[in-house]
Amino acid sequence: MGRVTVRRPVLRIRDGLRSQRPDTLTAEEPMEIRVGGRPLTVTMRTPGHDFDLAVGFLVSEGVVDSADDVAAIRYCAGATADGGNTYNVVDVALAPGVAPPDASLERNFYTTSSCGLCGKASLEAVRTTTAWPLGEDSLRIEPSTLAVLPDRLREAQRVFDSTGGLHAAGLFTADGRLTCLREDVGRHNAVDKVVGDALRAGRLPLRDSVLMVSGRASFELVQKAVMAGIPALAAVSAPSSLAVDLAADAGLTLIGFLRGTSMNVYSGAERLRPDPA
Amino acid sequence: MGRVTVRRPVLRIRDGLRSQRPDTLTAEEPMEIRVGGRPLTVTMRTPGHDFDLAVGFLVSEGVVDSADDVAAIRYCAGATADGGNTYNVVDVALAPGVAPPDASLERNFYTTSSCGLCGKASLEAVRTTTAWPLGEDSLRIEPSTLAVLPDRLREAQRVFDSTGGLHAAGLFTADGRLTCLREDVGRHNAVDKVVGDALRAGRLPLRDSVLMVSGRASFELVQKAVMAGIPALAAVSAPSSLAVDLAADAGLTLIGFLRGTSMNVYSGAERLRPDPA
Repeated sequence: MGRVTVRRPVLRIRDGLRSQRPDTLTAEEPMEIRVGGRPLTVTMRTPGHDFDLAVGFLVSEGVVDSADDVAAIRYCAGATADGGNTYNVVDVALAPGVAPPDASLERNFYTTSSCGLCGKASLEAVRTTTAWPLGEDSLRIEPSTLAVLPDRLREAQRVFDSTGGLHAAGLFTADGRLTCLREDVGRHNAVDKVVGDALRAGRLPLRDSVLMVSGRASFELVQKAVMAGIPALAAVSAPSSLAVDLAADAGLTLIGFLRGTSMNVYSGAERLRPDPA
Repeated sequence: MGRVTVRRPVLRIRDGLRSQRPDTLTAEEPMEIRVGGRPLTVTMRTPGHDFDLAVGFLVSEGVVDSADDVAAIRYCAGATADGGNTYNVVDVALAPGVAPPDASLERNFYTTSSCGLCGKASLEAVRTTTAWPLGEDSLRIEPSTLAVLPDRLREAQRVFDSTGGLHAAGLFTADGRLTCLREDVGRHNAVDKVVGDALRAGRLPLRDSVLMVSGRASFELVQKAVMAGIPALAAVSAPSSLAVDLAADAGLTLIGFLRGTSMNVYSGAERLRPDPA
């Protein structure tokens, strides 16, 4: 796409010394996701892998769960007054028989009639929406394998060194092989791009995979892992309370503060192999 | 509120040694913002300062710009089937004559009819929406003052050390005094809470202030600063391309990678005082 990074002039100040130089920045542009021509949401994202982002988002929202659910994906021309194409509007045509998302989808996802808007309702919404309840996987992981994931993710982030501004999401096999890496200014977008790539390749649910993210683990990221059938999520930084609650409720293995040979396991420890004596 | 942090059991693994212990996590709960009883958006936030969050969000969206625009703010009882109050639904009643937000507000904010959905349209939308175009301020800052802001922000983050999971936004005077600090699992929520506090205290526009954030500077954070009339935004990490473009377009001083006496100035360098010879 050639738009992942952008050059801009910057005034650098180091210990009182000033110098003017070009700097490399992560590109950020709005993208509108439409379903059957109808606008659904706008996300600020790093351009690239836009079709993966669109369908990955729809997996997270419970709209699609296989490549067969998607009839076509395209950039909308005519999004501007002069009929031009900004490559910032992506329209997903669903296959016949696939129900389009409700217009009030976001609220519905967090709210159930039984207890209004609260953390418990948010967990229940994920539980009743996912196509692949966890627990049917046979994933087992060595803690020593988990320990190498952050370095492998970082090594693979070619763009990272030049901007310092990108979040990464990487999909790994149980023996630590990276199978998909996506980067974005938005953490949730990086995960949607990984999941969308898998959907389009017919690889959902991702029952044999570990998802590793460069930052924190929020409710939203755990939700995306669960909706894609991923049984383990590892994060470099802290999880939130609701991320841990959802992981425990859904049966997901959640690892936080994964740094070197040190990590915290918040749920699903049964998927960790014992350390060799 | 007592819900800012939550205790959960965790399995710690350090160099192959396993131990069970309690861990302190940042609380995350959904919050729905309603305007005049009508649902507008749901955000995942850290409970606390919820009324500030609600009205700060409305400042960012161009709905309100003074305390007089808000008639009342309250938690909705009856949000659950049994009539209970989850303290996760906040309703803002606007004063007579204040136009409620459009239901398709999010899309409108990024889209103008002139050029569809693109970065340029996003900048234009902020420019035509803000109540206080920047440039009427007299803010001048010493780089040596900026250099101490990250440490002052961190020192003030009492919660941070116990969870490692909170983003912070701090409002500083030109001489480096902290006037408001808010923390949240969401970076945007922390800024909305700071801005909402100022609105309710009758202190908008914040023409004499520097906003400091603990993470990166995205388009969204620059937008929130501009909409509150804040002339300078400093971030510990990198800005995105669109954040820099918006800052330059709006006349905001944008500083990134602020670490020790080192920083990058991406726009608005005229507000920096020369260093003493």
